[in-house]
Amino acid sequence: MSQQDIRSILQAVSDQKLSPEEAMTRLKLEPFQDLGYAKVDHHRELRQGVSEVIYGAGKTPEQIIGIAGAMRDRGQQTILITRIDQAAADRIAAVHPLRYYDQAKVGLIGEMPEPDGDGTIVVACGGTSDLPVAEEAAITAEALGNKVVRLYDVGVSGIHRLLANMEPIMTARCIVAVAGMEGALPSVIGGLADVPVIAVPTSVGYGASLGGVAALLSMLNSCASGVSVVNIDNGFGGGYLAHIINHLGKKA
Amino acid sequence: MSQQDIRSILQAVSDQKLSPEEAMTRLKLEPFQDLGYAKVDHHRELRQGVSEVIYGAGKTPEQIIGIAGAMRDRGQQTILITRIDQAAADRIAAVHPLRYYDQAKVGLIGEMPEPDGDGTIVVACGGTSDLPVAEEAAITAEALGNKVVRLYDVGVSGIHRLLANMEPIMTARCIVAVAGMEGALPSVIGGLADVPVIAVPTSVGYGASLGGVAALLSMLNSCASGVSVVNIDNGFGGGYLAHIINHLGKKA
Amino acid sequence: MSQQDIRSILQAVSDQKLSPEEAMTRLKLEPFQDLGYAKVDHHRELRQGVSEVIYGAGKTPEQIIGIAGAMRDRGQQTILITRIDQAAADRIAAVHPLRYYDQAKVGLIGEMPEPDGDGTIVVACGGTSDLPVAEEAAITAEALGNKVVRLYDVGVSGIHRLLANMEPIMTARCIVAVAGMEGALPSVIGGLADVPVIAVPTSVGYGASLGGVAALLSMLNSCASGVSVVNIDNGFGGGYLAHIINHLGKKA
Amino acid sequence: MSQQDIRSILQAVSDQKLSPEEAMTRLKLEPFQDLGYAKVDHHRELRQGVSEVIYGAGKTPEQIIGIAGAMRDRGQQTILITRIDQAAADRIAAVHPLRYYDQAKVGLIGEMPEPDGDGTIVVACGGTSDLPVAEEAAITAEALGNKVVRLYDVGVSGIHRLLANMEPIMTARCIVAVAGMEGALPSVIGGLADVPVIAVPTSVGYGASLGGVAALLSMLNSCASGVSVVNIDNGFGGGYLAHIINHLGKKA
Amino acid sequence: MSQQDIRSILQAVSDQKLSPEEAMTRLKLEPFQDLGYAKVDHHRELRQGVSEVIYGAGKTPEQIIGIAGAMRDRGQQTILITRIDQAAADRIAAVHPLRYYDQAKVGLIGEMPEPDGDGTIVVACGGTSDLPVAEEAAITAEALGNKVVRLYDVGVSGIHRLLANMEPIMTARCIVAVAGMEGALPSVIGGLADVPVIAVPTSVGYGASLGGVAALLSMLNSCASGVSVVNIDNGFGGGYLAHIINHLGKKA
Amino acid sequence: MSQQDIRSILQAVSDQKLSPEEAMTRLKLEPFQDLGYAKVDHHRELRQGVSEVIYGAGKTPEQIIGIAGAMRDRGQQTILITRIDQAAADRIAAVHPLRYYDQAKVGLIGEMPEPDGDGTIVVACGGTSDLPVAEEAAITAEALGNKVVRLYDVGVSGIHRLLANMEPIMTARCIVAVAGMEGALPSVIGGLADVPVIAVPTSVGYGASLGGVAALLSMLNSCASGVSVVNIDNGFGGGYLAHIINHLGKKA
Amino acid sequence: MSQQDIRSILQAVSDQKLSPEEAMTRLKLEPFQDLGYAKVDHHRELRQGVSEVIYGAGKTPEQIIGIAGAMRDRGQQTILITRIDQAAADRIAAVHPLRYYDQAKVGLIGEMPEPDGDGTIVVACGGTSDLPVAEEAAITAEALGNKVVRLYDVGVSGIHRLLANMEPIMTARCIVAVAGMEGALPSVIGGLADVPVIAVPTSVGYGASLGGVAALLSMLNSCASGVSVVNIDNGFGGGYLAHIINHLGKKA
Amino acid sequence: MSQQDIRSILQAVSDQKLSPEEAMTRLKLEPFQDLGYAKVDHHRELRQGVSEVIYGAGKTPEQIIGIAGAMRDRGQQTILITRIDQAAADRIAAVHPLRYYDQAKVGLIGEMPEPDGDGTIVVACGGTSDLPVAEEAAITAEALGNKVVRLYDVGVSGIHRLLANMEPIMTARCIVAVAGMEGALPSVIGGLADVPVIAVPTSVGYGASLGGVAALLSMLNSCASGVSVVNIDNGFGGGYLAHIINHLGKKA
Repeated sequence: MSQQDIRSILQAVSDQKLSPEEAMTRLKLEPFQDLGYAKVDHHRELRQGVSEVIYGAGKTPEQIIGIAGAMRDRGQQTILITRIDQAAADRIAAVHPLRYYDQAKVGLIGEMPEPDGDGTIVVACGGTSDLPVAEEAAITAEALGNKVVRLYDVGVSGIHRLLANMEPIMTARCIVAVAGMEGALPSVIGGLADVPVIAVPTSVGYGASLGGVAALLSMLNSCASGVSVVNIDNGFGGGYLAHIINHLGKKA
Repeated sequence: MSQQDIRSILQAVSDQKLSPEEAMTRLKLEPFQDLGYAKVDHHRELRQGVSEVIYGAGKTPEQIIGIAGAMRDRGQQTILITRIDQAAADRIAAVHPLRYYDQAKVGLIGEMPEPDGDGTIVVACGGTSDLPVAEEAAITAEALGNKVVRLYDVGVSGIHRLLANMEPIMTARCIVAVAGMEGALPSVIGGLADVPVIAVPTSVGYGASLGGVAALLSMLNSCASGVSVVNIDNGFGGGYLAHIINHLGKKA
Repeated sequence: MSQQDIRSILQAVSDQKLSPEEAMTRLKLEPFQDLGYAKVDHHRELRQGVSEVIYGAGKTPEQIIGIAGAMRDRGQQTILITRIDQAAADRIAAVHPLRYYDQAKVGLIGEMPEPDGDGTIVVACGGTSDLPVAEEAAITAEALGNKVVRLYDVGVSGIHRLLANMEPIMTARCIVAVAGMEGALPSVIGGLADVPVIAVPTSVGYGASLGGVAALLSMLNSCASGVSVVNIDNGFGGGYLAHIINHLGKKA
Repeated sequence: MSQQDIRSILQAVSDQKLSPEEAMTRLKLEPFQDLGYAKVDHHRELRQGVSEVIYGAGKTPEQIIGIAGAMRDRGQQTILITRIDQAAADRIAAVHPLRYYDQAKVGLIGEMPEPDGDGTIVVACGGTSDLPVAEEAAITAEALGNKVVRLYDVGVSGIHRLLANMEPIMTARCIVAVAGMEGALPSVIGGLADVPVIAVPTSVGYGASLGGVAALLSMLNSCASGVSVVNIDNGFGGGYLAHIINHLGKKA
Repeated sequence: MSQQDIRSILQAVSDQKLSPEEAMTRLKLEPFQDLGYAKVDHHRELRQGVSEVIYGAGKTPEQIIGIAGAMRDRGQQTILITRIDQAAADRIAAVHPLRYYDQAKVGLIGEMPEPDGDGTIVVACGGTSDLPVAEEAAITAEALGNKVVRLYDVGVSGIHRLLANMEPIMTARCIVAVAGMEGALPSVIGGLADVPVIAVPTSVGYGASLGGVAALLSMLNSCASGVSVVNIDNGFGGGYLAHIINHLGKKA
Repeated sequence: MSQQDIRSILQAVSDQKLSPEEAMTRLKLEPFQDLGYAKVDHHRELRQGVSEVIYGAGKTPEQIIGIAGAMRDRGQQTILITRIDQAAADRIAAVHPLRYYDQAKVGLIGEMPEPDGDGTIVVACGGTSDLPVAEEAAITAEALGNKVVRLYDVGVSGIHRLLANMEPIMTARCIVAVAGMEGALPSVIGGLADVPVIAVPTSVGYGASLGGVAALLSMLNSCASGVSVVNIDNGFGGGYLAHIINHLGKKA
Repeated sequence: MSQQDIRSILQAVSDQKLSPEEAMTRLKLEPFQDLGYAKVDHHRELRQGVSEVIYGAGKTPEQIIGIAGAMRDRGQQTILITRIDQAAADRIAAVHPLRYYDQAKVGLIGEMPEPDGDGTIVVACGGTSDLPVAEEAAITAEALGNKVVRLYDVGVSGIHRLLANMEPIMTARCIVAVAGMEGALPSVIGGLADVPVIAVPTSVGYGASLGGVAALLSMLNSCASGVSVVNIDNGFGGGYLAHIINHLGKKA
Repeated sequence: MSQQDIRSILQAVSDQKLSPEEAMTRLKLEPFQDLGYAKVDHHRELRQGVSEVIYGAGKTPEQIIGIAGAMRDRGQQTILITRIDQAAADRIAAVHPLRYYDQAKVGLIGEMPEPDGDGTIVVACGGTSDLPVAEEAAITAEALGNKVVRLYDVGVSGIHRLLANMEPIMTARCIVAVAGMEGALPSVIGGLADVPVIAVPTSVGYGASLGGVAALLSMLNSCASGVSVVNIDNGFGGGYLAHIINHLGKKA
C-alpha cells in the first residue's frame, strides 16, 4: 500500500465516503505493506514476463504442484523450480507444462522469457564436476530474463583456456564464477574483469576440500577486488544476484 | 593498448614512419595489454577524477610516500590509502596533502571527488563497534566517486531503528551491510531491499564469535536472496564492489 | 533424608528406642536420598496430570513398549516419546493408546493435559524446513501442560511477517525461537520481547551451514539480551526449558 | 501506536477535526512505535529503582562519562557499566559516584537496589579462575534487583563441595553455572535442580580448551534437561537472563 | 641381540671358531631383534592363557577365519575379534568356536580366561547409548584376563546414581570412564578416585556433539588429575590400556 | 568419616555420652567425607614424604606465599608449584626455601623426596623446544617420589637416536612421551614398549600445528595400543598420572 | 610466439612483404600459444610409450568409453582410468582392452609400459587399510613408466618392520609414504632417507581422525625435511608427482 | 657403516689384527650407522662446499654461537641459520663471519656456495607480503648450492604478470610457489609447468584466511597435478625440498 493509497483512504474518510471502521479494516489488512513495497514492486516486475521461484528441496511433488497451481491461478506464467530430481519433475510435468533441465536439477513451467537485462551475464566454471551448480546459476539467470554466456572448462590449471575466452569476460555486465577444489577461478577472473564477480564455491572435491569449505575460504580471501561470495553450491543465489545486478539499469 | 593502437603502429611501420625496432619497443612495453584492456580502460576511468588505492597494511610510511609520489608524478590527483594508523598518516601528511579519517584508518591525498555514480550507496551497520569497518567501506566508496548514505546503529536487536530508516534502503543502488557478532543485518536488509546487498562480517565480538567467523557463516547462509559476502573486516572490499555496481550504468 | 529425619533417628537412639545398628542401617540405606529430593518433587509434580518423557532415539519399539508399560503400571497417565518414526509409532500404538505427531516425530500415550502454566509459550520458526524441530518443541511443551502459540514462517528475510505477529510475542511468558541457516530469528525476537528467548538452532541448510553450526554460532553471539541457546535440533530441550520457566510461578 | 490510537485519528478525520494531511503526518511519524512498546515498558520498569547498563568494552572513559551523564540527566539513578578496567573506573569515578568491582571489572553508579525478584539466583562456579565471569554475572543480577547466592569453588572434580551446598541450589529460582575447562558443572547442577540453569562457559584453560570452545560444546551437549547456554565469558548475559526469569512473577 | 651376544660372536671369530662370513650372517640375520624383545615378551605373555586380538573392521569374514585359523594352529587358545557384526560372527562361528557379544560387537574364540590381574577394573558409563563402547572395553579387558566391574547408567546428570556406587570405584585398580554428549563422567570420577582414569569419549549425541568431539575436548580439559584420554569410541583401546595397568604388578 | 566412625558416634549417643545435637553437628560437619575418603587417604599418603601441588598460573606470588605458608603450618614438607616465572619464584624464595627449575617453570619448597615408586618413569621428548613441557612432567614425577629417566632429543625424524636408548624404555614402569609438531613419538614408543604410554602433545610448531592440535590429534589416533593422551602442554598432568601408575603397587 | 617471431613479422611489414592487416591477424591469431607449449611438450612426452589419465570419479562408463575411444583414435596406446568400480570396469572392458586393479580401483587400457625412469619409486604404507590408496599411487606410477617397490605393513607402531626394509628406502629416487590415523610414517621415513618423500594422508581411522585431517596435519608438521604433502586419499597425486620427479633426468 | 666395513672388521678380527674388544668399540661407536648411512652420505655431501642448517627459532644468540662454533671446528665452512632477528644476527656476527638477510630473517656464515644443482629453481610469489617466506626459500636453496630465479609479484589477480615470465617457469627444474590469502598461485603454475611444484602457503591475510589455513587448503586441493604442499610459512622446507629435487641427478 503506497502512501498515495493511504492518502486516498484518509481523503475518503474525510469526504465521508468511507467510515472510520471501514478505513480501519483496510489499513489493518496489510499493516506492513509499506515495509514490503520494494518487494511488491519487485514481485510485480518479476510477474511481467519472468519467473517466480520455488525452492524444491524438501518439498514433495504434490506440494510443488499445489504451489505452482496457485501461482498460475494468480496469472504467473513462468515458474522456476530449483533442486528437484527427475522423478519429481515427471510428476509435476503431468500437471503443469514443465521442462526439466537435468544437469541443473531445475524445472521451468512456461516459456523461457526474452532477455531484458542491461547486458550479458557470464557463467564460468572450471571442471565438468562443477557443471550442475553452474547450470543452476545459468538457468536461474535465464529464467529471470537475462542473456547468459557459458564458459565451462576454463579452470585455472589450464589458464590458456580461460585466456582464449577473454571476449565474453571483458564485455559481460556481471560474472558468476563457479569452482570447487582450490576455488581459484574467481580470483583470476576478478583480476581480468572490471565488473562484479560473484564467486560460487562448490562441494566438488574430497579430503581437504572439506565439502567445499576450502574453495569457500579461498574465494573469501581473493586478492582481486570486486569479488564477493555466496554459499557452497548455491548456484541459484549466484544466478539471482547476477540478475539483480544486470537489471539495475531498469531501476533508474 | 587497443587493437586500433596496434593497427596504427603496424601502419606506421608499413609507412616507414616507425622502424621495426621502435615498433618492437612499443609493443614490448605492455606486451599483455590486450589481456588487460578492460583494466586499462578501468584505470583510465579511475584516473579521471577519482582515486587510486594503496593498501597500507604492512607498508612503511616511507614506502607509501614513495608510491604516492610516483602516482602523483603520473598525474594521479586523488589517492586512497587504507589501513594506516595516525602516526603513519602524520608522516605521509608531511609530504603529501593527506587528510586522515581516524575511525576508518584511511587517508586520502587530494580532494574527495564529486559523486558520479548511478545512484546512492547505503552503508549500514548495527553497533558502534562495527563503525571502523563501515567507515572504511563508506570512505572507499566516496573516494571512488559515489554518494554514500550512512545508516549506523540499526542492529537487528532493535529492529524498529532499521524500519524507521526504510527510505534510503528502498532507494539505494547498492547496500553494504556491516555486522559482527551474529551477523544478521544483511539477512534482514536483504529481505527488505531489491538491490545487491554486500555483507561485510566484522571481527567484533568475543568467545563464540571466533574472530568474525560466526558472522561470516551467518551471512553466507542468509535466507534472503541478493546477498553476497566478502572477507571479515574487509570494509574496503565492500566499498569497492559497491562502487563497481554503482558505476555499471557508465559502461553501457 | 532431611536433617529433621537424621535428627529424629539420633533422638531415637538417644532415647534407646533405636539401636545404633538399626540407626546405622537407616542412615546407610539411602545415603544420597536428600540429594535427589528436588528431582523427586519434580517427578511427583510431573506425574500429576502431565507427561513423563522417553527419548526414543536408539531404542527399539519393543524397548519403548516395555518402558511405557512399566510407567503406566506405576500410574503414569501421559507419556511423551520423542524421536520415533511412523513404523515404530505403529508398533507401539498396537499396545498402548498412542497418538503420533508425524512432523515432530513424537508420540503421546494418553491425553494431552490441560495447560496449567503461568502464561503462554510462543514457538516461532522461520521456514517450513524448521517445522519438525519447532513441532517437537511445541508438542513437548503442550504435553507438559503448557499453552503454546505457534508462529511459523516468520523468518527474518521477510521481517513484516514477524512484525504482523507482535501480539503473541509481546504477551508470551517464554519464547522458543527455532531457526536454521543464518539463525537470526532469536536475535530479532530477543530485541522485541522482554521474556526469556530460548534459541534452538536447526541443521536446516547446506554448505556453510555446517550442519547447523552456523545457526548455533549466530545465536550464541546474539546482540540481544535474554537469549540463551540449546543444542542443534534440540526441540525437546527448548520445549522442556520453556515449560520449566512457564511453571516457576507454581513453585512460589 | 495502538489500534485504538489509529481508530481515534480516523474518527477525527471523519469528524473533520483532523485534515487528511495531518492524519497522514501522524500515521507516518512513528509508524513502528507499537513494535517497540514492550521495550519501552521494559525500560520504564528498569528505570524504576534498578540499573541501566552500559557495555564498556571498546568505549573510552570519556564516552562512558558522557553516556552516563545523559542517563543521569534523564533521572536514571543506578547505572551498571560492564567490562571496564581500574584506570577507566578511576576516571569515571572522578565525575560520577561510581563503585568499582575489580574482580568483575564492573562499575556501578548509584546505590545497589533492593532485591525485588521472585526468589534467589544462585551463581555457581568451579575454580578461582572462573571468578571474574561469575562475579560479572552476580553483580549484574544484583544491580538489576535480585538476591544472589554465590557458590564458588564447587567444581565437579571435587563433587562433595557441590553436594555440601545443596540447600541454595534446591531453593533457587534460577541458577547461573559458570565453568571453564571441561564445563561439566551445569550438567551436574542441571541434574540436581529443577529450575532453569543458565550455563556460562569461560575461556579459562589452555590447549584443547580452544579458548572456551570445549566448555561451550560440553554445555550445549548437556545430558541434563533445563540447561541453556550463552556465549563464552558472557557473565553479563547469564546474569541478565537470570534477572528476567527471576522477575517473570512481576509480569503476571 | 645383546652386546654380550655380539661380544661372543666377535670372540668366536677371534678364536677362529666362526668364520667372518658366518659372523656376518648372524649379525645380519635379525638386526632389529633387540628392538622387538619387549613385544616378543609381551606376546609370549599374552599367549599364556589370554587372548590375541584381531581388529575386525574392514576385514571380510573369510580373512578373519584365515587369520584366526593360523593363530590357532600356532597354539593360540583364545582370540578376541573386535568390530564385527552378527552376520560376520555367524560365518566365523561356523568354522571356529566363537561366542558373539552383540552389544560390544566383539567375538571371542575359546574360553574367557581366568582373571589374573592385580585388582579389578571398573568400566563406567552414563547412558544406555554408550553401552556398546563400554562393553567393548569391558569384554576386551575380560578377554585379556581381568576382573571387570560394570557401572552403567551413572551419568553426571543424576549424580546420586554414581555416588551410590562408590565402593567399586574406591577399590578399583583402574577405571575406564565412557561417556558421550558432554563427556563429564571422567572428571567427576577422577575427582573421587585415586587410580588412573581412562576416559573414552563416544560419538553418542547429535548437533554440537560433533561426532564425539565435544566429549573428547571435555575429557582432555578435565580439571581432575589422573585422567587421560583415548580416541572417540575406542572401547578396545580403553580396555587394553586398563589391562596393561592392571598387570603391571606381574612385571615386578 | 568411615562407617566405623559413624557407628562410634551412634554408640556414643546410645551410651548417652553424646547428645543428639552434638552427634548432629559431627555428622553435619563433613557430610560427604565418606565420598572423599580415597582422596583423604591419597592426601595422607602424599603428605608422607612427598609433595602437595599448587597450580601457579593466575595466582600472584603473594597468594602462593600464603597458600604455601598454610601448607607448611599444617606440616607439609615439600610443596610443588607449577607454572611460575623467575620473578614470582624469586619473591616466593624470599619467604620459603624454594628451589626454582627454570626450564620447567616449576618451583619446589623443601627437599626432593626419595623415590619410592614401583619402578622408573621415562620422560621422552623429541626436540629441544619440547623440553619445558618434558621437564614439567619429569620434575612433577620426581617431586611426588618417582625415579625419572630423561630421554630427550629422540624425535622420530632421527629414529636411530630413539633406538639407541631402548634399555630405559624397555624397563620403565610408565613412559611419558612429549612431542609437538607431528606428535609421532608416542606411537613409535607405544609400538616398542609394553607399559602405559602417556602422550603429552605440546604447542611447539607453527602454521598447521594449530597450537598443538595437530600433535594432539596425531596422538589420539595412535595405531599403537597402550597410549593415552592428556591436554596440550600438560606436562604436570602427564607426570602426575605417571606417578599414580608407578605407585599402584603401594596400594595392594 | 617468441620476441624473434614478432620481430620477423614487424620486419616483414617494414619490408612491405606483409600488410598491416595480415600482421594484425597473425598477432591476434594465437596470442597465448606460447603459454601452452610446455604442456604440449609434456603431453607429447607422455604419449610416447606411457599412459594418459582419465579421472573416473563422477563419469559414467559410457562417458569413459567415449573419451578412451577418442584417445585411442589419436594413437594413445595406454590409458589409465582412476576411481572406477568393478561394474564400470566391466562395462568399459567390453569395449576396450582394460585390465582392472580392484584394490586400487584403477583400470588400465593397453600394456603396462616398460619402466624408463631415473631410478625406483618406493610406495610405503602402514596398515592394510591404507592399501587402496597405496595401490592407486603404485599403479599410477607404473602406468606412467616407473619401477615401483612396494613396502606395505611398515607402520610406525612396529618400527622394526620398517627398519628391516631399509635397502629399498635408501636406494629409491623418490618415496611415496601413505598413512592414515596418526600419519607418522612420512616423518620417520623422511628422517631416514635423503630423497623427496611425498606424504599421502588417508581417511583411514575413526573419531578424532576427522576423515584423514589428523594424518594430514601430522604430515604437514613433519619434523623431517624433504617431506611434502598431497590431499587426503590422493594416491594418484602422489604417484604422479613421484613420476615427474623420477623422470627429471630425462629433461636434462 | 656399510656391510663391507663390517666384513672388514670381522676379517681383521679373524686375522688377529683387531682384538674383539677393539672391534666391539668400533661396532658400538655408531650402532645404527647402517640405518643412517644415507644421512651420513648426505651430510658428507653437504659438508663439501654447501651449508649445514641451524633452526634459529627458540634459540638464544649464545646457543647459536656455540653450535656454529662447534660446526666450524669440525670444518664446516658455510652455515645457514633460519628465523633469527636483526639483534640476534648482530650478536652472532660479532663472533662469526655472518651475513644477514633481513627480509628472509636468515643468516649465513661463510660464503654462498657455487650452484652445483641439475638446473635452476624458481621461487615465485604473488604479493610483497609473501616476500619474507619466499626469500627464506630462495636463500635456503642458494645456501645449499642451487641457482635460484626469483619471480615476485606474479599473483593470480594480475595473471599477465605471471604470463610475462613464462621462460624461467618453463625451464626450471623445480618451482617453489609461495602464496597467502587465496593461495591460487601453485595451481596456476602447476597447470603451466611440468616439473615438481612445491606449494608454500603463507599466513599473509586476515579474517577468513585463518592464519594461512585458507591458502593451505586451497593448495592441497589444487586441480593441477605435480603440486605438493609444506607447512604454512615454511619457506625453509620449500627451499630444502627443492634443493633435494635439484640434486637428484648427482645421486645417479
